[in-house]
Parts: sequence; C-alpha cells; structure tokens
Amino acid sequence: MLRMQSKTESSLLSPLEAPAARVLNARGVARAVLVCEHASRFIPAALDGLGLDDVAARSHAAWDIGALEVAVELAGALDAPLVHSRVSRLVYDCNRPPEREDSMPPRSEVFAVPGNQGLTMDQRAQRVRDIYEPFRGLLSQTLDRRPEPPVLITIHSFTPIYNGKTRAVELGILHDSDDRAAQVMLNHAAHCGLRVALNEPYSPEDGVTHTLREHGIARGLPNVMIEIRNDLIDTPTGVNRIVGLLTPILAATVETFSDAGQNT
Amino acid sequence: MLRMQSKTESSLLSPLEAPAARVLNARGVARAVLVCEHASRFIPAALDGLGLDDVAARSHAAWDIGALEVAVELAGALDAPLVHSRVSRLVYDCNRPPEREDSMPPRSEVFAVPGNQGLTMDQRAQRVRDIYEPFRGLLSQTLDRRPEPPVLITIHSFTPIYNGKTRAVELGILHDSDDRAAQVMLNHAAHCGLRVALNEPYSPEDGVTHTLREHGIARGLPNVMIEIRNDLIDTPTGVNRIVGLLTPILAATVETFSDAGQNT
Repeated sequence: MLRMQSKTESSLLSPLEAPAARVLNARGVARAVLVCEHASRFIPAALDGLGLDDVAARSHAAWDIGALEVAVELAGALDAPLVHSRVSRLVYDCNRPPEREDSMPPRSEVFAVPGNQGLTMDQRAQRVRDIYEPFRGLLSQTLDRRPEPPVLITIHSFTPIYNGKTRAVELGILHDSDDRAAQVMLNHAAHCGLRVALNEPYSPEDGVTHTLREHGIARGLPNVMIEIRNDLIDTPTGVNRIVGLLTPILAATVETFSDAGQNT
Repeated sequence: MLRMQSKTESSLLSPLEAPAARVLNARGVARAVLVCEHASRFIPAALDGLGLDDVAARSHAAWDIGALEVAVELAGALDAPLVHSRVSRLVYDCNRPPEREDSMPPRSEVFAVPGNQGLTMDQRAQRVRDIYEPFRGLLSQTLDRRPEPPVLITIHSFTPIYNGKTRAVELGILHDSDDRAAQVMLNHAAHCGLRVALNEPYSPEDGVTHTLREHGIARGLPNVMIEIRNDLIDTPTGVNRIVGLLTPILAATVETFSDAGQNT
C-alpha cells in the first residue's frame, strides 16, 4: 500500500525528496480533517537553500514552528486525518493561490528570500505543479473520501514578535465568510486559560484564508483556522500542554457539527 | 471518538499531560505496526525535570532524536499504525521491563540523572503504572486489533559518538532470537547507500530487544528494530532523505511477510 507520487524528469523534488505532501491517519473516524500547510522547513536540494542564511532557514518565516507536532498529536487524539505539506512555505506557500506573489514570497517579515527574486513564469509554474498541486490534490481527495461532511481545521503557529511588535494573543481562531465553526470553537475555548481572540493575529484581509475558502467554503463545510503562538509549542512540555487544552475544545466543536450533535 | 486515559489523583501525569502513549493511523492497512518507544523528551512537571540540566534534558539520553519524525512519516508512507510513548525514556524507558534498573536509569552514558537516584519501590511502581503500562497496553491492543498478523518494526536513533567513541554504522538492523524480518530487511537494504550493519550499534546482549521479545516473539510475529544514526535525521533534509530511503525497503520487507508475498 505504498503511495508514491509519479515523477517527471524535471521535478523540483528528487525521488528521495518526494512526495510534496502527505496524508496521515486517512481512515480516522472523526468528522474532521486537519490541515497543516506550513508543516516543514524543508527546501529541495535543487533550490540551493533559496540563498537563505541559517537563521532565516530555521525561522518562523520558513515554517510554522511546532504546528506539525501539534497537528500530529491532534490527529491521534481526535482520530482525524491530517494532510500536511512537506516543503517550506518559502518554496511555495500552500495557503496561497498561485496568482498571488506571496505564494513564493521574495520577502517574509524581516527576511529577504534571494532564491525567490525575479522568478520566471516557468519557475513559478514548476513550483505550482510540484508543490502546490500535489498538496491541493491530496487534500481534495482526502475530503472527497470522507463518508460524512467533516469540519475542516487548519493548524498554524505565529511568532510572538512580528516586525518588532509583541503579540499578546496566544490562540487565534480565524474564519472567512463562514464563521460557524469559529464561533462554536470560541465558545468552547472561553475558559481554557489561554488569551483567545477571533481573527487575530491575522484576518481574511491578510490573505490567510485560502485553504478555508478553497476547500471549506467551496464545499459548504464548517471550517476554522487555528493560530497558536509559537513560544507555547516550541518544547515538548508546551506541545503536550497545548494539545491537552485543544483536544477537548476541538472534540466538542466537531461534535457540534455531527449528526448526533445537530439532532440533540 | 476522543480517547482519554482514566486518571487517578496520584497520577504522575496531570490531565493535560496525559496520555502517556498514543496510537496514530490505527486503521492503516499495511501489514505492519510501527513502534517508537523513545519518541519524546517530555518530563512531567511533577518530576521537576529529574534534576537534569538543559544539555542533558535535550540530549540523546532523554530521547531518540528524530525518531518520531521518521516514524510518523513512515506511518503515512506505509499506511501503518504507529504506537509511540509521549514521555522521556529517562522517566521510564518503554523498551525495558520494570524489573531492570535501567528502566529508570540513574545514569545514561555521560549524564547522571539526579531524579532517578534512590527511587523507592512506590516511586518505581508509580512510573510503571503511569508510563509503561499504558504504553504496553496500547501496543498490545493495537496488535490485537490487526486483521492479519503484522510485522513489528521499532524505530530508534543513536548518537554518533557514544562514551567518546565514534560510530561508523549509519543504519542498524537489530534482531533477537527471531531474525526473519531483520534478514529480509538487510537484503533489501543492501544497495541503499547507507552503511548498514546487523545488530549494531547495539545487540540483544545490551538489553535493547524488550519490545521485540514482549510483543513480537511472544506472538510469533516477524519483528525488527531499526537504529538510525541521529546526525542523519536531525534536520528536515535528513529526515526526508532517510524516509525516502527506508520507505521502499520497509514496504518490500512487509510485502515479503504478506500472504501474497509468501504465496509467490
């Protein structure tokens, strides 16, 4: 039951580096699908590190620190599928549509990205084909195969200091035009002990709800984007605590949208 | 479908820190079960860091660096269940039986473990009850529920320099009295480009085959322990490469023990 991506000679990812995205716990029974678009800081060897220094390549600009660890734990705790990218968002940001320049950002916060300067149309098309399309296809397929409509939950983390400004919020609950899941989750998170805010530190105006729109709203699925401040999940102690806090909140949120929850 | 461990007031793990072990991808269809006993360096708050300094608490003594990331990727790639501990092996080493002193080691390589000195019988019993038994029970249950006999595969990593000695081996394939899976895997790994060795850098005489014996040999399941040198999997580039190398090797090994493989 080995899943391999079919490759062309010109692929950005070598056979050992592929696939660009992975699904875990595909047969989980929860009425939820978890997504982690910024799970990895991996840069394919063909791109020569995008010309980044080590600080930038390990920073929040390259990935969402701690997000995959939290998402994997939640996939186990909720028994939900998880679809995640395996490539840095600086190569292609799977939470952005191809037509946006910041899908392959020439700059991210304080970091210039030399390898993304002056990309040709062909170079952009290659990244779309080799990074974004496999991710998008795998997420679509995972949603298609759910026996019942799931809640779509995307897991992100954010840096505590951004462009020199300190952020007080610890847990952001983000939504686009469909706020059903966000409002239910906000309600369940009211007494969790974290500083929780709706549409902080980002909102739809920042262009961060692409996955919610493309895969949630377009299918009529309840959907929510979770942003965790990354200093809360940069140690095993922090990850276990946040997973312990989020598990009952998300379980209750998902339950609300299940048949049983809607019928009571 | 939330799984919560039932707790007593005296549990070593707080409700937010529990459970001690997790299963991921429980309904995966591969005829394999993956295990990662040393997946985490998490130390419950009640143990006050075991008195370790930060270097020791982050070192290979506290966990198998990179092993969980590799195991999670392999669970996705092979579509196999993965059972992993969520607590440091310095609290309880789930690859050791309770009666062995090094199940709660007072010393690990160059690191003394102050919090493990002079443990009382009650303290040892508590760790067995709260860390080892949940792990053991979850692995047993996972194996019980497989529709067909799986190959048991445990995923470990080792430090490149141990007690001052450099280790050349990159991939160790370890077995106890049943070497069926190890020999098949060794054969499939022959041309993978890594320095591969049987029963290196540890062997059954080092007491490292507890899980293989308890869950593999006792059930008559083919079983193998994999040891990856941790400098090969301490970056995303390394993890993706090793996962890329191991996936076809393990898929072929598992296939050998499937009905189809045995009938051809």
